[in-house]
Amino acid sequence: MTRCWELCVLLALVPTSALSQSAKQNSDLIISGGTLVTMDARRAVIEDGGIAVVGDSIAAVGTRSEVEANYQARHTIRAQGKLVLPGFVNGHTHVPMTLFRGLHDDVTLEDWLTKYIFPAEAKNVDENFVRWGTRLAAAEQIRSGVTTFADMYYFEDALAEETKAAGLRGVLGETWIDFPAPDNKTSTARSDYTERFLKRWRGDRLIHAAVAPHSIYACKRKTLEDAATLARKYHAPILIHLAEMKKEWDDSEKENGATPVEYLDKLGVLGKDVVAAHCIFIAEQDQRILATRSVGCVHNPSSNMMLASGVSPVAAMRSLGIGVGLGTDGPAGSNNDLDLMEEMDLAAKLAKITKMDPRALNAQAVVEMATIDGARALHMENEIGSIEKGKKADLILIGLDRPNAVPMYDIYAQLAYALKASDVATVLIAGQVVMRDHQLLTVDEDRAIAKAKEYQEKISRSLGLAR
Amino acid sequence: MTRCWELCVLLALVPTSALSQSAKQNSDLIISGGTLVTMDARRAVIEDGGIAVVGDSIAAVGTRSEVEANYQARHTIRAQGKLVLPGFVNGHTHVPMTLFRGLHDDVTLEDWLTKYIFPAEAKNVDENFVRWGTRLAAAEQIRSGVTTFADMYYFEDALAEETKAAGLRGVLGETWIDFPAPDNKTSTARSDYTERFLKRWRGDRLIHAAVAPHSIYACKRKTLEDAATLARKYHAPILIHLAEMKKEWDDSEKENGATPVEYLDKLGVLGKDVVAAHCIFIAEQDQRILATRSVGCVHNPSSNMMLASGVSPVAAMRSLGIGVGLGTDGPAGSNNDLDLMEEMDLAAKLAKITKMDPRALNAQAVVEMATIDGARALHMENEIGSIEKGKKADLILIGLDRPNAVPMYDIYAQLAYALKASDVATVLIAGQVVMRDHQLLTVDEDRAIAKAKEYQEKISRSLGLAR
Repeated sequence: MTRCWELCVLLALVPTSALSQSAKQNSDLIISGGTLVTMDARRAVIEDGGIAVVGDSIAAVGTRSEVEANYQARHTIRAQGKLVLPGFVNGHTHVPMTLFRGLHDDVTLEDWLTKYIFPAEAKNVDENFVRWGTRLAAAEQIRSGVTTFADMYYFEDALAEETKAAGLRGVLGETWIDFPAPDNKTSTARSDYTERFLKRWRGDRLIHAAVAPHSIYACKRKTLEDAATLARKYHAPILIHLAEMKKEWDDSEKENGATPVEYLDKLGVLGKDVVAAHCIFIAEQDQRILATRSVGCVHNPSSNMMLASGVSPVAAMRSLGIGVGLGTDGPAGSNNDLDLMEEMDLAAKLAKITKMDPRALNAQAVVEMATIDGARALHMENEIGSIEKGKKADLILIGLDRPNAVPMYDIYAQLAYALKASDVATVLIAGQVVMRDHQLLTVDEDRAIAKAKEYQEKISRSLGLAR
Repeated sequence: MTRCWELCVLLALVPTSALSQSAKQNSDLIISGGTLVTMDARRAVIEDGGIAVVGDSIAAVGTRSEVEANYQARHTIRAQGKLVLPGFVNGHTHVPMTLFRGLHDDVTLEDWLTKYIFPAEAKNVDENFVRWGTRLAAAEQIRSGVTTFADMYYFEDALAEETKAAGLRGVLGETWIDFPAPDNKTSTARSDYTERFLKRWRGDRLIHAAVAPHSIYACKRKTLEDAATLARKYHAPILIHLAEMKKEWDDSEKENGATPVEYLDKLGVLGKDVVAAHCIFIAEQDQRILATRSVGCVHNPSSNMMLASGVSPVAAMRSLGIGVGLGTDGPAGSNNDLDLMEEMDLAAKLAKITKMDPRALNAQAVVEMATIDGARALHMENEIGSIEKGKKADLILIGLDRPNAVPMYDIYAQLAYALKASDVATVLIAGQVVMRDHQLLTVDEDRAIAKAKEYQEKISRSLGLAR
């Protein structure tokens, strides 16, 4: 009996298993279970979902049983009891400034720049500063579920190396500004550096090298035009601060007889490769220009509040079809963290209080801004921003096992208003697991933190600050 | 030689040790090391600090070496590399509403109340609901460093039992409202219930029973007066929503010929036992009345933004000497969490953008509002709110070992803008350790979370909601 039973089991199991194995397609990884918040065109939410990953991309999305019926994988990540989302997109930041986090807040932007940050940068920013600041920021961003970020700083080539080493996706713009920058002291040096930078990263799987003319107030006309020309030669994105300050608007009206948006449009800078950060002082005709030119916009609620800059007309821009993402801005003076989940919360709440209408911008809208609309703002919506077959496997798993996570009547409300960066458990970028169950795998976090403390001492000394 | 050396060591050590032991005073617990952010009158910050705790109180504060020279303890908590603060004070909330978290956000207050929350409360709020909601909220509040909270809800006696069981300090107000409440259906039942409640908790070490007439728009004149009279008979605090809505102001002007503050003052309700939540529609003469009457005020930035209520003139009230604390408000419809650290961040940023001045309310001010001024708002500044000898040992240890925590140039800026609830590692209330290294000790968190999920199903069914 026993032998017969064993034989029956063997007969029953082995061929079936072999058959189902052979009928299944191979994948590198399956995310099994969990609630998929796809952010696809239908905003489909799939309970007990499954995602098959092949290489750096999503090969299949569906229910767990559908996906597991068709795919086998060497590795499985169990997502039961978790939300699975496309990774968050931080559309505007200056990551090395982590090392200046909290250096003189609560002062006017002018005082902050001229008395504190410009001197601090002149004395401290070099390639190593950029590397360590980027590494620390990479840890912080991954921990909060950011899988793609757009940056404007100096030594952007070193920043790109660190970003790639951390496994993060980056749209990284070398800053052009009309005073001697920490890296390039002349316009020729800057052009040469930027062109080498653009050439080097062409076709990279994670890094999109970009050109970042700072703003209309910090760049002469020729700088703006040259930056755009160089970017377009290499089909690279153009990152710029736009209409952030009242003074910028007033000066532009006076000097150019045009709004900041109109002025940039006249120069031929605006186009579907431009990512404009802030977009606060934006008239109705400006909104139409941004929509017509397919410019991506990035709203930075924390920074705009912290610096008292003003409030971007986000809902109006969205209603014109403009891709409006979310950004943390730099983590010094204007935030002071890199937590995109807080920007979701703030974006909704800021719009409501500004319009004195709790319906002004809802939870789903800000989750869109952090994902698919953030991707649109960076002109990367065909690559990232939603969980869909063919898109990059940039995926985050958010736990629901803390008191702040329950109960959950509405997934979008939970994401916008109740869940925290600390609930992000697991992060994949381009199919690579960069954080698993809160453990970072691609950044030596302890070393980055220790180095940040060293920089704190060095920077404090350089500015004559006592602790 | 060996023996001689051993003898010398014995001679050198034993008597000294014995001597120093005998010279030292006994304490129950020493917090050893760490940076003490005392929030005392001098706002002293003590590096490598020490705190001796005897019973439920602080017996000594100083440097580690000073305290350890004078005190011995059975238990030591090592705080090296951490910030040590007085526990945060959540000055206004409705904790059982955790169980309604995220139930229909992004709608007007009127719709939210009449279409969603009142029906949901009528169908679901009973004593068990209050118990489980309070338990879940206790876990969430302790995790974010809250050691004292002020609450207004129903079945407040059950809420008090749960609060005490969690080891939290609470100012707990039984709500008086002029329609049949979930607990007491008549004004007589309400008076009787509240009087029993006030008597029961007199002299309790953690629970301050209070009376909470809801507001001038939800309570008739007699209700307000009776509530105040009963509270004063037992020297209990009076908690009230005040000047939260424009309509409240308009109606009061029309019906009472007075602002909401003037009206309450005329009724004799205002005094140094009153805690007024919101205080948004507050004229200059109202501010003077609040200051003269020593009313405590509680600012709820998240709620005021979420519901588009308006912005409280916090800086002006502070400059008149009013004790202005911070509150999360209820975690449904108006926040949706109980994270007081986010309220610090929001309070500063909201004041800045409202005044279009980044100096409007600074980091130190919002840390004060979360600690010593929160204590003043609750009229408990002699008991809690700072780390000082004789005050209650309500203490929190905040880790600095995450990427968002470094570098740190300014402790107050770090607390207000960069550190998160998830950085709170250890919490003591009245000398009892309620969370140690992120592990809750007084609440069965898993059970509270499981129960919240059960309530989610039950409440969804009661409202005919599909998931």
